[in-house]
Amino acid sequence: MTNRIKRSLPEKIEVPRNFRFAGVAAGIKKSARRDLSVVVCDQPATSFGAFTQNLVRASSVDWNETHIGLSRAIVINSGNANACTGNQGIADTESMAGILAQRLDCPSEQVLVMSTGIIGELLPMDRVRDGIGSAVNDLKSGSDHVLEFADGILTTDTFPKIASVRFEVQGQEYSILGIAKGAGMIGPRMATMLCVLLTDFPLENCQSNAREFHGIIERTFNSISVDGHTSTSDQAILLSAGSESFPPRDKFFARLHEVCQELAKMIPSDGEGATHLISIEVSGELPEKDLKTIAKSVADSPLVKTAIFGADPNWGRIVSAAGYSGVRFDPLEITLKINGFLLFENGSPVTFDPQTVSQSIRDQFETSVCIHIGNGAAGGNDSVNTVRYWTSDLTYEYVKINAEYHT
Amino acid sequence: MTNRIKRSLPEKIEVPRNFRFAGVAAGIKKSARRDLSVVVCDQPATSFGAFTQNLVRASSVDWNETHIGLSRAIVINSGNANACTGNQGIADTESMAGILAQRLDCPSEQVLVMSTGIIGELLPMDRVRDGIGSAVNDLKSGSDHVLEFADGILTTDTFPKIASVRFEVQGQEYSILGIAKGAGMIGPRMATMLCVLLTDFPLENCQSNAREFHGIIERTFNSISVDGHTSTSDQAILLSAGSESFPPRDKFFARLHEVCQELAKMIPSDGEGATHLISIEVSGELPEKDLKTIAKSVADSPLVKTAIFGADPNWGRIVSAAGYSGVRFDPLEITLKINGFLLFENGSPVTFDPQTVSQSIRDQFETSVCIHIGNGAAGGNDSVNTVRYWTSDLTYEYVKINAEYHT
Repeated sequence: MTNRIKRSLPEKIEVPRNFRFAGVAAGIKKSARRDLSVVVCDQPATSFGAFTQNLVRASSVDWNETHIGLSRAIVINSGNANACTGNQGIADTESMAGILAQRLDCPSEQVLVMSTGIIGELLPMDRVRDGIGSAVNDLKSGSDHVLEFADGILTTDTFPKIASVRFEVQGQEYSILGIAKGAGMIGPRMATMLCVLLTDFPLENCQSNAREFHGIIERTFNSISVDGHTSTSDQAILLSAGSESFPPRDKFFARLHEVCQELAKMIPSDGEGATHLISIEVSGELPEKDLKTIAKSVADSPLVKTAIFGADPNWGRIVSAAGYSGVRFDPLEITLKINGFLLFENGSPVTFDPQTVSQSIRDQFETSVCIHIGNGAAGGNDSVNTVRYWTSDLTYEYVKINAEYHT
Repeated sequence: MTNRIKRSLPEKIEVPRNFRFAGVAAGIKKSARRDLSVVVCDQPATSFGAFTQNLVRASSVDWNETHIGLSRAIVINSGNANACTGNQGIADTESMAGILAQRLDCPSEQVLVMSTGIIGELLPMDRVRDGIGSAVNDLKSGSDHVLEFADGILTTDTFPKIASVRFEVQGQEYSILGIAKGAGMIGPRMATMLCVLLTDFPLENCQSNAREFHGIIERTFNSISVDGHTSTSDQAILLSAGSESFPPRDKFFARLHEVCQELAKMIPSDGEGATHLISIEVSGELPEKDLKTIAKSVADSPLVKTAIFGADPNWGRIVSAAGYSGVRFDPLEITLKINGFLLFENGSPVTFDPQTVSQSIRDQFETSVCIHIGNGAAGGNDSVNTVRYWTSDLTYEYVKINAEYHT
């Protein structure tokens, strides 16, 4: 029954060289929990960012998009998103960067800012200022400080989200550390609610590295949802501690993909009220974009999400959600498996034991949904593509959390 | 507190001439409730249809789309959607039309078929055959028979959905009677789950009448959702008892629009587990198509729907749902009212008493959300358009119904 566990803390955290961390309770949250985190790089780092596509977005997103490229530090507060707060909100984002920059003796433009929490309220800037001060005094590189940093960025999350790897390129060891948060308002369309990726692997500030980064974000954080509601504050930032020489990067991006995928899956695993992570795989001779549209249509259906909550192998809801995705395909070519059990083949239901499939859904935290679109009349000579998408089930607890989380 | 009531039966039902109705319990549903309805027109009627855009669709939808134009009768069963049932399902749809056609002594092609209920199971054709026989023996034109007909097409609905009007054109009285069903899997993209519209107003079988009909469907049944899940079986059918001469039709279509809007609003009012009907109005100098995309984005957000369930005037969720709709507009031009209270003006929150607004949401079954997009930099010389969209709130009961409604 270990499969029933959502997620525990990682056994080992690989901390890249040159980064120091802190997470403190500044009094922004009404609870006394940590709500302000700072990460500082000892040298200016090359930075890459992916940002929410919501037109209504937080001033911190605008600030970071303007200044991404070369960064010394990131300051993050939770408990208040500083979104829809007008000109005062814009000034407060600038102040947050300025306060930390002054302490680090670097230009404000080298400090990135993230804010997450309630929308439409002004930040308590006195507390933010004091919090940044305490955090700077507390910066350390140990994994316990990484945990405090990860804790300080959480809102409705039930566990901190950390993934890391260590690898070798040309005899030199490097590591990648990723820290994310997010449990609700998850329907990313560019990046997801707050993810920080840190590495001591040197990366050039160039278009081709940015493209690789965005490609990975597309297949990981942009392939998850909890409720399909794109947040105002989604951001993923990668910092690479600089260097004059740049080793071959293929291995780096492969490992970055692993870290991002592990973190991305943690978000719907911790989806508000979730009792299941639903992993959707869609394959077929269609462009990846179309396969992802089908996966997202299934992932966003409240009827599919409640069926999994009820441990119901309701293939009708899944197949019909694929059918209304807007992608053209031959419905007689669709095949579906849940947890490896074949339920629907080439457009027709097959005989299966619903009790067995239902029990397998109940027994595991992760439910696997595999959809294959065959190469019928509409098919061509394209090769088979596969996409993956992750979501959570829809439960009483989701409704409770979101009906009672008042403005 | 009368506003708290979802919907009661209409005080008066206007029944158009030439139509007779029946609704019987054929034993398709496991409960002993009515599950088979028949409406017959005494003369061949001009018919118009709007059908689901789901690629995965029921054979009855295919049958009706092929044979729409001239129709004598409609047979509808509930409890079983006869969808995803392969060649046997196609044969069963044909048999349903054939059995009724034989009794009426007309061609099978003049009988339309609708099926609603569980997906993926074969119809018990013996019971269907006997049910059609009983229904034909019971056909009458009285409003009590309309009620039995309306009752026989329900699934998870909690009340029958009937709307009717009587009007006069050139000294002659006519009426329109509409009967619909639907409470879940509601995210129509052509028509909604089963709507029958009957009139004794003569309509020519022509493209221009079909265009008018589709325009009304677009602004009514295609402007509602419960869970955004487009069904396999959505259909709206209009039957007009034929005539050789055709009076001016403007008044007819105006009244048809009223009937369709009244019926359409009943569906999310009876949305599975709904405690509120949410009426969304979006206006601005943008094409209607774009305004509707914004309205749908707000309507489909589980965070907006749970906020209304919690009587929470959470403007941040509404404004951000508009922001991620994909429509380009200036976020500094957005203004929002809930139940007439101004919460957000030109991109910034305004001071309001949350208790008062919350109480107004609690006091009424219908919550009004008005969004206006001003004519900022992106605006032009277009005139202001307005669209309306209706949805239900998301409640514990929705989760319960759909987690426990097993395949």
